[in-house]
Amino acid sequence: MHPERLLLGPGPSNPYPEAMEAMVRPVLGHLDPDLLSVTREIGDRLRQVFRTTNRLTLPVSGTGSAGMEACLVSLLEPGDVAIVGVNGYFGERLCEVARRAGADVKRVEAPWGSALDPEALLAAQRRHPEARLVAVVHAETSTGVRNEVAPLLALQETDTLFLLDAVTSLGGIPVEVDGWGVDACYSATQKCLGAPPGLAPVTLSERAAARVAGRSSPPASFYLDLGLLDAYLHDPHRYHHTISASLLYALHAGLGRVLGEGLKSVWDRHTRVGEQLQGVLPGIGFELLAAESHRLPQLTTARLPAGVDDAAGRKVLREEFGIEVGGGLGPFAGKAWRIGLMGHAARERSVVTLLGALTVLGG
Amino acid sequence: MHPERLLLGPGPSNPYPEAMEAMVRPVLGHLDPDLLSVTREIGDRLRQVFRTTNRLTLPVSGTGSAGMEACLVSLLEPGDVAIVGVNGYFGERLCEVARRAGADVKRVEAPWGSALDPEALLAAQRRHPEARLVAVVHAETSTGVRNEVAPLLALQETDTLFLLDAVTSLGGIPVEVDGWGVDACYSATQKCLGAPPGLAPVTLSERAAARVAGRSSPPASFYLDLGLLDAYLHDPHRYHHTISASLLYALHAGLGRVLGEGLKSVWDRHTRVGEQLQGVLPGIGFELLAAESHRLPQLTTARLPAGVDDAAGRKVLREEFGIEVGGGLGPFAGKAWRIGLMGHAARERSVVTLLGALTVLGG
Repeated sequence: MHPERLLLGPGPSNPYPEAMEAMVRPVLGHLDPDLLSVTREIGDRLRQVFRTTNRLTLPVSGTGSAGMEACLVSLLEPGDVAIVGVNGYFGERLCEVARRAGADVKRVEAPWGSALDPEALLAAQRRHPEARLVAVVHAETSTGVRNEVAPLLALQETDTLFLLDAVTSLGGIPVEVDGWGVDACYSATQKCLGAPPGLAPVTLSERAAARVAGRSSPPASFYLDLGLLDAYLHDPHRYHHTISASLLYALHAGLGRVLGEGLKSVWDRHTRVGEQLQGVLPGIGFELLAAESHRLPQLTTARLPAGVDDAAGRKVLREEFGIEVGGGLGPFAGKAWRIGLMGHAARERSVVTLLGALTVLGG
Repeated sequence: MHPERLLLGPGPSNPYPEAMEAMVRPVLGHLDPDLLSVTREIGDRLRQVFRTTNRLTLPVSGTGSAGMEACLVSLLEPGDVAIVGVNGYFGERLCEVARRAGADVKRVEAPWGSALDPEALLAAQRRHPEARLVAVVHAETSTGVRNEVAPLLALQETDTLFLLDAVTSLGGIPVEVDGWGVDACYSATQKCLGAPPGLAPVTLSERAAARVAGRSSPPASFYLDLGLLDAYLHDPHRYHHTISASLLYALHAGLGRVLGEGLKSVWDRHTRVGEQLQGVLPGIGFELLAAESHRLPQLTTARLPAGVDDAAGRKVLREEFGIEVGGGLGPFAGKAWRIGLMGHAARERSVVTLLGALTVLGG
């Protein structure tokens, strides 16, 4: 039996109590009318959180990575050009998944820790007007950088779709699917939405859904084919797989908590506690990596002070104080920590608990 | 808030109380040492249930269909020949998923409701000795038929792998991965293993694992790439996705219950209650579809008596008595029911509850 943890890594975060309690509600069959009504309500709640009216809005039965792959494999056909913004680990993953789907990937890069230039992405699309999509990670979980994506609304005047990774942003900072002209967006339940991991919320615009329906050949994946998932979770409810009732209940409850508090006030809470943490870290020797203009509140990447060893320090935090923080990735491996304040962990008590522990650790 | 159901359809079944209780244990990060130790124990428990010593034994983050796709997409390369046994819905699905993975599918068929002839599968392999694999569904969930698969041990003397779908059989009737020379086997948590849905146990033999490691190009799927999942859930624990701690706890507890009771005694229980049900159904007008020699105890397909309407009857069972049974598929749609007695629902009380309800329904 393991103890409780304060989850301040890059995810999972601590789920809201309501989401945990919902998990033990009785399991229902995947086509039970009572479960379909939960699924319908999840769709309604997700539309509010994604800020969209998209009909095709549903949870994919897998984690955020499954949501990424469901979007790419359903929207891309072999040989399609895909423009991908890369300034961290998850931009690289977009490239890898798109390549496996048979796409010809064109990279638009920025250094790890810096933000992408939206004008460079638009310029790449002008060089490759035949591109099927431009894909960007909104909140780079590997660096704590927020990419500016609102200018990609200009893609609506082209035949190129706009695909947004909102795994770490949805529920933490504004994500405006309709307002920014996002054609495909995916997220995960276990970060700012405050539910346990296992499902990936996805939404597609009408033109993206038409693209899925009009493919010349089916996607390489059956499990992650968004056309089949649409026909399963919406009318005509054609059998596809056995979606996990327990995970649906938890997501339903987590979204209920977010919408009950109010989306704007949830964003404000993530911003407030993130800024509290970022306000004090430099004073105790942790240098913030992302520039202030593109710094995420819900995920902070900070360079370790001299004298703090990465693995040993995280071990003390975990074993003595029951706190998880994340290690650095890529060029920051061993040199920086990733500190998340997301979902139920996005509160003042998390900040003071961590600060107290860091003080003891450094002292 | 929905009421409880007695889940007597083709799955999900009612989870064991231990599995439900485990779900609310505190969420841990996906690389937390305490979670890795749960994952290791799940591997050990799965080896006992699969009756194998295979090192590469792990839960895939998705349902049984994800397990199917993980095996096919990881083992097949475009152009490979795949021999598939087809005598029901899930045999058809194996063909579809293999085709999407780029395979040249050779079908070996038997009518829905009959069993496949293992000699016909071996003969197909002799006609196509270059075939990468022979894939068979052990327990056809669409018809209640058990396919005889032990003779496929002969494939061990060829270069063709033996892939077994054990979604509805594992934990309900004997599955002998090593004894039958099964190279790749996948299952699901929500049937005879008595856990909620969301994970797919998978095991690969050494020669199947070598095939994955020696591919000439990566699988089309990143999410379901068994090579990447092996490196994530086993040493060196390279980050791949955020596996759901809650689903792991539930699987761990469900397997603990099965092994605590004893695998043989769990098989006996499934057989005993299945035979009880099958002993009385014909007397109240339900004709059993599968021949006795190939009839599954844990899933019974029975033709409806004259005067019982499929949808209306299932609605009464569900709404008045809180009992779910499954409708027929394919040629049996509207004409038969699929009645599962799996996991925690595989007990005498389920049988008498259903019989009482059917008596009222028919009366």
